[in-house]
Amino acid sequence: MGSKYQKSVRGPLTLWAFMLEVTLILIFFFFTSYETSVKEQKKLMRTYREFQDVIIMAVLGLGFLNTSLRRHCWSSVAFSLFVLALGVQLTVLLDGFLNQLSLRKMVLNLSSIQISTMSATSVLISVGVILGKVNLLQLLLMTLIEVTAFSATRMVGKEVFNMDNHISMMYIHVFAACFGLTVACCLPKPLPNEAEDKQQTATSPSLFAMLGTLFLWMFWPSFNSALLDIPDEKKKALFNTYYALAVSMVTAISVSALAHPQGKINMTHIHNAVLAGGVAVGAPCYLIPSPWLAMVLGLLAGLISIWGAMYLQVCLQRTLDLHDTYGVQYTFGLPGLLGGITNIVLMALQVKWTKISTYALKPQNMEVTSRG
Amino acid sequence: MGSKYQKSVRGPLTLWAFMLEVTLILIFFFFTSYETSVKEQKKLMRTYREFQDVIIMAVLGLGFLNTSLRRHCWSSVAFSLFVLALGVQLTVLLDGFLNQLSLRKMVLNLSSIQISTMSATSVLISVGVILGKVNLLQLLLMTLIEVTAFSATRMVGKEVFNMDNHISMMYIHVFAACFGLTVACCLPKPLPNEAEDKQQTATSPSLFAMLGTLFLWMFWPSFNSALLDIPDEKKKALFNTYYALAVSMVTAISVSALAHPQGKINMTHIHNAVLAGGVAVGAPCYLIPSPWLAMVLGLLAGLISIWGAMYLQVCLQRTLDLHDTYGVQYTFGLPGLLGGITNIVLMALQVKWTKISTYALKPQNMEVTSRG
Amino acid sequence: MGSKYQKSVRGPLTLWAFMLEVTLILIFFFFTSYETSVKEQKKLMRTYREFQDVIIMAVLGLGFLNTSLRRHCWSSVAFSLFVLALGVQLTVLLDGFLNQLSLRKMVLNLSSIQISTMSATSVLISVGVILGKVNLLQLLLMTLIEVTAFSATRMVGKEVFNMDNHISMMYIHVFAACFGLTVACCLPKPLPNEAEDKQQTATSPSLFAMLGTLFLWMFWPSFNSALLDIPDEKKKALFNTYYALAVSMVTAISVSALAHPQGKINMTHIHNAVLAGGVAVGAPCYLIPSPWLAMVLGLLAGLISIWGAMYLQVCLQRTLDLHDTYGVQYTFGLPGLLGGITNIVLMALQVKWTKISTYALKPQNMEVTSRG
Repeated sequence: MGSKYQKSVRGPLTLWAFMLEVTLILIFFFFTSYETSVKEQKKLMRTYREFQDVIIMAVLGLGFLNTSLRRHCWSSVAFSLFVLALGVQLTVLLDGFLNQLSLRKMVLNLSSIQISTMSATSVLISVGVILGKVNLLQLLLMTLIEVTAFSATRMVGKEVFNMDNHISMMYIHVFAACFGLTVACCLPKPLPNEAEDKQQTATSPSLFAMLGTLFLWMFWPSFNSALLDIPDEKKKALFNTYYALAVSMVTAISVSALAHPQGKINMTHIHNAVLAGGVAVGAPCYLIPSPWLAMVLGLLAGLISIWGAMYLQVCLQRTLDLHDTYGVQYTFGLPGLLGGITNIVLMALQVKWTKISTYALKPQNMEVTSRG
Repeated sequence: MGSKYQKSVRGPLTLWAFMLEVTLILIFFFFTSYETSVKEQKKLMRTYREFQDVIIMAVLGLGFLNTSLRRHCWSSVAFSLFVLALGVQLTVLLDGFLNQLSLRKMVLNLSSIQISTMSATSVLISVGVILGKVNLLQLLLMTLIEVTAFSATRMVGKEVFNMDNHISMMYIHVFAACFGLTVACCLPKPLPNEAEDKQQTATSPSLFAMLGTLFLWMFWPSFNSALLDIPDEKKKALFNTYYALAVSMVTAISVSALAHPQGKINMTHIHNAVLAGGVAVGAPCYLIPSPWLAMVLGLLAGLISIWGAMYLQVCLQRTLDLHDTYGVQYTFGLPGLLGGITNIVLMALQVKWTKISTYALKPQNMEVTSRG
Repeated sequence: MGSKYQKSVRGPLTLWAFMLEVTLILIFFFFTSYETSVKEQKKLMRTYREFQDVIIMAVLGLGFLNTSLRRHCWSSVAFSLFVLALGVQLTVLLDGFLNQLSLRKMVLNLSSIQISTMSATSVLISVGVILGKVNLLQLLLMTLIEVTAFSATRMVGKEVFNMDNHISMMYIHVFAACFGLTVACCLPKPLPNEAEDKQQTATSPSLFAMLGTLFLWMFWPSFNSALLDIPDEKKKALFNTYYALAVSMVTAISVSALAHPQGKINMTHIHNAVLAGGVAVGAPCYLIPSPWLAMVLGLLAGLISIWGAMYLQVCLQRTLDLHDTYGVQYTFGLPGLLGGITNIVLMALQVKWTKISTYALKPQNMEVTSRG
């Protein structure tokens, strides 16, 4: 991503970004207003807390997650914030227009910004695949396309497949990993020695990557439970995410030592594998009735993530000549897929399941039916 | 600020700080007690959350904001905490005495510490002008004077001009910038080559400065809405600050690239300009009825801040032989002025305004009259 | 702690950790279920906030506190998270079995994870004594033993001495310091020149240590008040901790300058002494009726901590040939002892005390009697 551009890129960047901002301000001027209902104001501060957790994950967590490479540690933080700030503004408008399917005036409230921030997170995840190979103008274009694509996907999921907010959001990890991979395929390949130089890690920035990882680790329960409204589901989402993260952390550290010929623990493995548990448990977290299943998912996700770091990275590079800078495929892609499959299996087994476990039968069934 | 002192400074520092602490403890012993009313205890945890946000901004945000210079990155964090811890204790007492205008026993509650923390933030902002040119004893003296001056200013604003808590606090940015400039004028000038050596930035500390920036960016909505009690105003303050920050971020990145001859993005620009939006929207945030105006303010503040970094810094140094270490004038001073002017204009246009926008007429007017 | 292991360690680590995880999952499968009562779900989000504060302290605060040494800054963060993730899972089970004193199915709720996290913090504190001298397998073993010992101690305190949750938890600092010292005695001594090499500090990691310190400093009031249920006691705990921390910060900075021959401020002093105030006020914080006493405790704790750093470290090394890597004895051990003594004195003086101070007599007495 090097902070030096050809002069031909520099001018257009400022022009484009500036024009985009002016356009956005004009659209906001004509098509938006704040909600004035008293009902939302009562729970304002509670919503604000949940919103703040998501912001911390996006800004600090994902911002600092991708800082371990020596050459572009600073720019990854700054560019992430740029992408986020732009992405949220776009998504607020897109979601508003797509929800009402017309050009009437839309009403903005805190949850619309919260959902937009979560959607814009998809760009931050995809960015990890191509960081160090694109300039800011390409990043701006990618943000525009990805945010539009993800909003459209979510609307299709809601309208056609009748998904609720939580489920349509939780496929974000798989979507972002695939989108990143597609973008990486389209980009011109860098010269081999240049790529190697850019791949060097540094000690102090890797502590920053750890900082980002820790923020993600701590606030992942908030992310997974943010869009659930029924208290019982929210509670289960918090618990299951927490247990899955704890187990995937222990797995990551212990398996990483085995993988290395000298038994060293690989920093990059840890940065990724620690989070895999939270990703895997994302979609099914509101369905899992007792901690052990979440822990098994965490264990599997940790193993998948380390396995991916060892074999998938090399495999992708050899067969497709692709280089996934920060291992987005095995941090977000594969564990997200595991979570999706688990979710489908759990929904199918729902009735059988509630009989086996000691979980009280009636309230569970009622929620499931009210959920559709 | 170099961590080495002449022996002549060292003894007095310990002596002064220690005597000050003992004096403070004695005053607290004779003149304070905790509130015991049941009413405040009910909303204790909610107030604690808002208070915590302000603490995070002051300690982490402003503490790490000024760490990008190689020579005194560590001392700026430690000294900021020192100044804050001392400033809060002083302001709690000063505010107590100034509010009751007598030496009776005062009652301490959480909001008194919250307001004190926000007042002590003024010293943390001013410190950015003179960092690297003062020792800890001078800093201690400056804290004593600035905290007293700001508390007095706030009381005058409240008693004479009938301002409410929010407005009298939001001029903090302009006050702190001016105070810092005044202090810088009074200090002896360093030798030129020494100053240059101290001006060198380092990569890893600049990531810490980014960390501070991000914390400020995330919690700025909390800061701007902390002293507003009416839910509708609080909501607008949260929203407008958020939109202004998003736009000033995008502006900062894109204009900074244009400014540099090779199109590089300047870290220092970003650290400052990102926050300018939050400063500019500070005073008028509770009045702005729809997002576009906040976004325009964010855009202007970003432009002002980058313009200031390019021309004002040089201009100040040439004409007044002043060196503003961390660019406090164009991060906090000028955007704060913009916010102040906007606030006055908005209050004057209030009636006209509510007619133009789609905003419901009556509740707005009622609040304005109840506000004075 | 060096990230390189002999091959003989590597295999067993993975094997042990993996088998432990599988065992834990099986125990969770057979013996636990989530709480389904509606009552807890109502205050779910409030409990989640308090829980989150404790997590931030444990993960970020204690994780980054021990990063100032050049050789093992990264591993201390990663290993802390490993220890925490494992410790919490163990403590949840242990606490459950010890509370019901049988092998029946236990019910998990948020406060059980919160208390487990606080208990597991004891391992994170002890780790500071021996960091750099143990490998991950030894750390795993130590976690198993310490967590069991601390849970047993707490249960004995509750059953035999009739302590409440808050008091039995607040002796954690003294317990962890003593446990760490005991472990350090049992370890083989490193060669002198090797130890010296490992003792070197680095600039940028010491900023991370400052980051950890600041997180601990900010969230210490949450930690001290987490297990108090009566609003008046919770309020006093918040206030007193805050005042004690502010004073111990000012003391630390000013006395540290006096101690050094050239008047330099010692980073390591600051990292430790800043926190001493919070530790000292931990046990008695709910009893102290006005701020001055908390401030005196903060002052004393700061002095003790700096004194310990200057003399106790050297003394321990000479007499017992012990090396306390991060000065756990004078950060947590001695201030914790001071707090314990203060607590006993305050409880004894309770009746006399309430007469002297202006504090309302009746509610205070009622709480004390209802507390046992």
